[in-house]
Amino acid sequence: MRSVGAALQAVLDRAATGSVGRVADYIPELATVDPARRGIAVASVRGQIHVAGDVDVPFTLQSVSKPFVYALVAAEMGVEAVARHVGFEPSGEPFNAISLEPGTGRPANPMINAGAIVTAALVAGSGPADSSARLVAALSAFAGRELSVDERVYASESATGDRNRALAHLMRAAGVLTRPVEDAVEVYFRQCAVLADARDLAVMGATLANGGVNPLTGVPVVSAAIARHTLAVMTGCGMYDHAGEWLVRVGLPAKGGVAGGIVAVQPAQVGIGVYSPPLDRWGNSALGVAALTALSQEYDLHVLTHRRTAGLPVVADHVDDRGGRTLTLQGELDFVAVEQILHTLATAAEGRARLRVDVRRVTVAGTAARRMLTAALADLATTGVEVTVTDPGGMLGVDENR
Amino acid sequence: MRSVGAALQAVLDRAATGSVGRVADYIPELATVDPARRGIAVASVRGQIHVAGDVDVPFTLQSVSKPFVYALVAAEMGVEAVARHVGFEPSGEPFNAISLEPGTGRPANPMINAGAIVTAALVAGSGPADSSARLVAALSAFAGRELSVDERVYASESATGDRNRALAHLMRAAGVLTRPVEDAVEVYFRQCAVLADARDLAVMGATLANGGVNPLTGVPVVSAAIARHTLAVMTGCGMYDHAGEWLVRVGLPAKGGVAGGIVAVQPAQVGIGVYSPPLDRWGNSALGVAALTALSQEYDLHVLTHRRTAGLPVVADHVDDRGGRTLTLQGELDFVAVEQILHTLATAAEGRARLRVDVRRVTVAGTAARRMLTAALADLATTGVEVTVTDPGGMLGVDENR
Amino acid sequence: MRSVGAALQAVLDRAATGSVGRVADYIPELATVDPARRGIAVASVRGQIHVAGDVDVPFTLQSVSKPFVYALVAAEMGVEAVARHVGFEPSGEPFNAISLEPGTGRPANPMINAGAIVTAALVAGSGPADSSARLVAALSAFAGRELSVDERVYASESATGDRNRALAHLMRAAGVLTRPVEDAVEVYFRQCAVLADARDLAVMGATLANGGVNPLTGVPVVSAAIARHTLAVMTGCGMYDHAGEWLVRVGLPAKGGVAGGIVAVQPAQVGIGVYSPPLDRWGNSALGVAALTALSQEYDLHVLTHRRTAGLPVVADHVDDRGGRTLTLQGELDFVAVEQILHTLATAAEGRARLRVDVRRVTVAGTAARRMLTAALADLATTGVEVTVTDPGGMLGVDENR
Amino acid sequence: MRSVGAALQAVLDRAATGSVGRVADYIPELATVDPARRGIAVASVRGQIHVAGDVDVPFTLQSVSKPFVYALVAAEMGVEAVARHVGFEPSGEPFNAISLEPGTGRPANPMINAGAIVTAALVAGSGPADSSARLVAALSAFAGRELSVDERVYASESATGDRNRALAHLMRAAGVLTRPVEDAVEVYFRQCAVLADARDLAVMGATLANGGVNPLTGVPVVSAAIARHTLAVMTGCGMYDHAGEWLVRVGLPAKGGVAGGIVAVQPAQVGIGVYSPPLDRWGNSALGVAALTALSQEYDLHVLTHRRTAGLPVVADHVDDRGGRTLTLQGELDFVAVEQILHTLATAAEGRARLRVDVRRVTVAGTAARRMLTAALADLATTGVEVTVTDPGGMLGVDENR
Repeated sequence: MRSVGAALQAVLDRAATGSVGRVADYIPELATVDPARRGIAVASVRGQIHVAGDVDVPFTLQSVSKPFVYALVAAEMGVEAVARHVGFEPSGEPFNAISLEPGTGRPANPMINAGAIVTAALVAGSGPADSSARLVAALSAFAGRELSVDERVYASESATGDRNRALAHLMRAAGVLTRPVEDAVEVYFRQCAVLADARDLAVMGATLANGGVNPLTGVPVVSAAIARHTLAVMTGCGMYDHAGEWLVRVGLPAKGGVAGGIVAVQPAQVGIGVYSPPLDRWGNSALGVAALTALSQEYDLHVLTHRRTAGLPVVADHVDDRGGRTLTLQGELDFVAVEQILHTLATAAEGRARLRVDVRRVTVAGTAARRMLTAALADLATTGVEVTVTDPGGMLGVDENR
Repeated sequence: MRSVGAALQAVLDRAATGSVGRVADYIPELATVDPARRGIAVASVRGQIHVAGDVDVPFTLQSVSKPFVYALVAAEMGVEAVARHVGFEPSGEPFNAISLEPGTGRPANPMINAGAIVTAALVAGSGPADSSARLVAALSAFAGRELSVDERVYASESATGDRNRALAHLMRAAGVLTRPVEDAVEVYFRQCAVLADARDLAVMGATLANGGVNPLTGVPVVSAAIARHTLAVMTGCGMYDHAGEWLVRVGLPAKGGVAGGIVAVQPAQVGIGVYSPPLDRWGNSALGVAALTALSQEYDLHVLTHRRTAGLPVVADHVDDRGGRTLTLQGELDFVAVEQILHTLATAAEGRARLRVDVRRVTVAGTAARRMLTAALADLATTGVEVTVTDPGGMLGVDENR
Repeated sequence: MRSVGAALQAVLDRAATGSVGRVADYIPELATVDPARRGIAVASVRGQIHVAGDVDVPFTLQSVSKPFVYALVAAEMGVEAVARHVGFEPSGEPFNAISLEPGTGRPANPMINAGAIVTAALVAGSGPADSSARLVAALSAFAGRELSVDERVYASESATGDRNRALAHLMRAAGVLTRPVEDAVEVYFRQCAVLADARDLAVMGATLANGGVNPLTGVPVVSAAIARHTLAVMTGCGMYDHAGEWLVRVGLPAKGGVAGGIVAVQPAQVGIGVYSPPLDRWGNSALGVAALTALSQEYDLHVLTHRRTAGLPVVADHVDDRGGRTLTLQGELDFVAVEQILHTLATAAEGRARLRVDVRRVTVAGTAARRMLTAALADLATTGVEVTVTDPGGMLGVDENR
Repeated sequence: MRSVGAALQAVLDRAATGSVGRVADYIPELATVDPARRGIAVASVRGQIHVAGDVDVPFTLQSVSKPFVYALVAAEMGVEAVARHVGFEPSGEPFNAISLEPGTGRPANPMINAGAIVTAALVAGSGPADSSARLVAALSAFAGRELSVDERVYASESATGDRNRALAHLMRAAGVLTRPVEDAVEVYFRQCAVLADARDLAVMGATLANGGVNPLTGVPVVSAAIARHTLAVMTGCGMYDHAGEWLVRVGLPAKGGVAGGIVAVQPAQVGIGVYSPPLDRWGNSALGVAALTALSQEYDLHVLTHRRTAGLPVVADHVDDRGGRTLTLQGELDFVAVEQILHTLATAAEGRARLRVDVRRVTVAGTAARRMLTAALADLATTGVEVTVTDPGGMLGVDENR
């Protein structure tokens, strides 16, 4: 039986022949990598990992770090507090654009360098070393193993980081950067120089996919709300001035780095990590873009995909010998399903003294769905119907004999 | 039992008190509306409609028409052919921005006026009247009833449309607008002046949610691929320079118009139409934005939401008396589910002569999932296992006795 | 004795070998010219004309018309009234830039197309034909002979003028263009298609150099104030995004057109017309730029040049036998000269009953200089000194025996 | 007799009532000045100085230093070498704009901060202290007295100079800034903090007006070519995004600083210094702008002014008893005069054996005029005419008996 790994290998091989790029050379350390190394890893929210190629070759995260550090800071300070320093808007501009919002001086979003620098400066800590340590710890929690900084790359980035220092000084002048410039860029350059491999990227992505809980370690790194917020920002801004094309062709929140890594996320499903150093003209791994495009199309990963064949949410409607009625619900209780269930419930309860609802076949139930369903059942109960819910797994968070 | 309609009414009332806006007055016809009228409608992909407030007050679509006309043209010409005339990238700029791509002269995307004009000009037809007729027919198909043009509003838009004519001339000069300017803007101004109500908007949105098939009439208006593509473009570009904030706070593909309508879509679930004339500073219905924000948050509609409680895809594993094994699958067969099923299948088939797979409890199965599952079953069969699938509903498109 | 004409021929020949350009081809009529034709003419404020090369080959004025039409409109309406429709600021942008001032919607200046269109629309007249006739009459007055419109070029410009129509619509939308777009561009396209030759350009320039009075015909076309104002606008904005380089290297108010003409002006001295169709990358005649650069450098025409060797303004100081004193003034009575004369007068008058001032050797005396000098003499007279001015030519506008 | 000083006082008083501004407060040291202090000084190229008001109150040069440091660097390196680091083009943008030329990374011109920083970094020296010392020495030479740095203002500028450091880092990244950022900004901040008064500004301006020679000390600070070049750059770029208005209304090369000083120059005539701290919205002394506008209009200082009344360059034409002819020339030998003289010479020499040219009444003769005239006389001599020039002052650089 063909494995997922074999499928990934096939995607990787096809992507390798179909993409052309150029290895980043703005610092010598990046230029010395082997351009032929490539790997892909997929980690599911259930913790399974499938890999193909060079998934254990370490590289520096560079901009791949941005969404994770943003998530850390948003978790520490709250989304609204961070929003006073950096926006959420796509800038339609390259990664190193000077796009500060007129009036506030905020950078457009945390995925461009300006926004990432101001975000790095918001990481709590008694000084840059302390903040860096906290930041590396958070990235490690996302990856499920201890990551470390490549000190040579850090030193090189710091030595040549004039444009980033320029951005920092501009934001300092505008009042949105509260730390001294050198402290802020030290934290930022260290964050960029954290080493990881394609497998780590997949797990980091899977943690966001899994509502902020690392599916390997079970550790909650950020809340589900922050994870979703981060994915929303990645969706709009992660691919810079290529965001629209990406949304149309791939449809997965993603972030690439100049060292050749890309992380992509299918919410509630998987994180994907790809590695291949040669970059396209937008500064993303050329092979990585090709592989993710193919993967999304072949495996229907686009977040806006409409899956055509769907079963019914109410699959059985038995009337027992005592005149009671049992409705068996199944599948995902999304808005449409609950709406239909409510409709069925109203009809089914007419003239009945007892109604049983069996949710053992329900696979997914969101907060709102649970709330709507339990409210409807409570309403029914007030009309004199004896309502019973068979929910041994606590899917609805309702006990059996209410 | 509290109905969905009552919930919508509550959302509408709260939104009314919490929002402040100003009715558009750039043409006199828009300024004369009653600013207090407001309504909301939700249409599900199963064709049910829930409403609250003034859902039958007609208003002109204005920019709400843009995604639907774009879908029409993409369906007629193909996405790649349209992409030679208009891009997919968020411009980070207001609706009337002059943002033509350097080099190609293409407008950034079909949601800004420049892109919508070039799109309108691509509607097939022997002349502007013919193209307009085809366009109105397509919008009617999306709405499931015959729509018509408000000729007074059309005349007024045409009389005052200097900025749009300027955009058209610029694109004509750049070579991306192939029709004469006056023909192009005639089609465009007519499209903006098509009358609809909040209920229509909900159905139009539900048609996109439902893979291009109108859930009321059952008429396939565009393909599922075009519907998804259109939703992707709406996600990135529909809310102009407010797109990032919208993605973070609401997370639904959407498009508003200056007459006060907004359409929003939860893919595979619902279309939502809201109407209230006073606009916020981005030119969208202020109450509409507030209502959709509340609705998304209260009912978990954000497309990137991770629903925490999820059941298992394989719920029963029986060994019959003849040594055969039956696996019962349930719920939505997404990537993670299929990956887990494949893993279970491999284990379950070990040392077995017969394997039965029961998919009667499966509620949703995408193309990729069906392909992966049937390929795995075929692989199994080649190893000598007798594989049977119980699928009376044809969920997998596989017959019983392969 | 070597003539000025021979010197011009030498400049022209050297410029021909040192410049490379490309003939404009945006309309077919421009592309058919003979690229090898070239000519230069210099007309002095005294009406003498020196020429070399093809100074009688007619070509369309194109943008060369802009300063003259601007001068016409400023003369008709007043500078402040025109300034409500178009600014004076260099835009640092190309000729066809869309640079309307935020807030007012005014184009940056009348030398870019947007500003020239709004200027053309301000030409008085009962309709576009009437305005065009007045405009051609004014250009003819500047040139000192009757000019006419090349109707084929006009028709071609009008047929392809999408970008200019776009600019007109934008300004109409902004409220700075008060005429209908088609009327405005008709006047503008006609103005661009007026035929002239290099000799005409020289005379047109000389008219501005000569305070608005045509030195050939003696006809006052505009006032000295409007002529200077026009030259100031040409200095700042005439060479578009090349203005700074031009100011540094040539230092003469100038304006070029895409048909290959350039007019340059040395205030109070000469107008220069050059013709050669191939254009440089800024859209100016490549040979014309080279020739004017050489001419300015070789003949010290830069308006900011400091001429090192200067004589004294008071050259003779005689005391007559009756104890009276006579001061003989000479040369140009500029600020420095008058300041020194005032100083000398004060000393010379001490203890004298009579003072005679002889201004017959004065060559140039501005309004302010005349005012300062006559005021000082009047002051002296009030102290009891008998002051006599010998000024048979009326240089000071003061009669002999005051 | 009314003095120039009294006239200046009148201008100053009227300007004081007609202008409104706000004292700069971006560093505390600037905010503590007395906003009511005001003064104006005019220094002529002959070394006379007229003053009114507080011309001895010291203030920091700030941006007034820019043209002088630019002149110093251009003198040291040559204009073309400097042009590899900074352009000459008006940017149409404010003083602190980030406008680096695409491709080269050069700042638009040396009058905006970015260009001034790169210029400061080009001042020769073994280190920033050495370069600063050379720079202060050059500014002192322009002023004709020893100037010094206000160390408190320097320290304050340095402490708050984030935006300027940002510009420096951007230029360092682009490769146009060759010194380390901290060294470059140290030199720049010191240059801004040099103390001078309105009288100094007048003399500094007069040095540029006088072809680079300080008219008080007689010291040649820069060459006439560099002085003119500097004035050309000031004309185009000195008043930032207000340059066009300034050129139209005042017409003098000028440069203002945020401490309230403005220097203006009428080439070959005068330098003007004005001081008054409250600034207009472009960051220039509001009173200074009003005073210079009034002064230019009342005293006809606009560089493009056409002075209407002009005498003839050949005033006497005597035929002596031996058949020889004497032409007496007078006034300024500019292009028009020489052209007319050449015409007269050709006629006058016909059939004559001897021609005498008397230039004792010539007041100004530029290089080109001298060259043209002497060439024509030499040509005449070759035709057999005995030519004599009476030029005891060496106005033509030709000895008597050639």
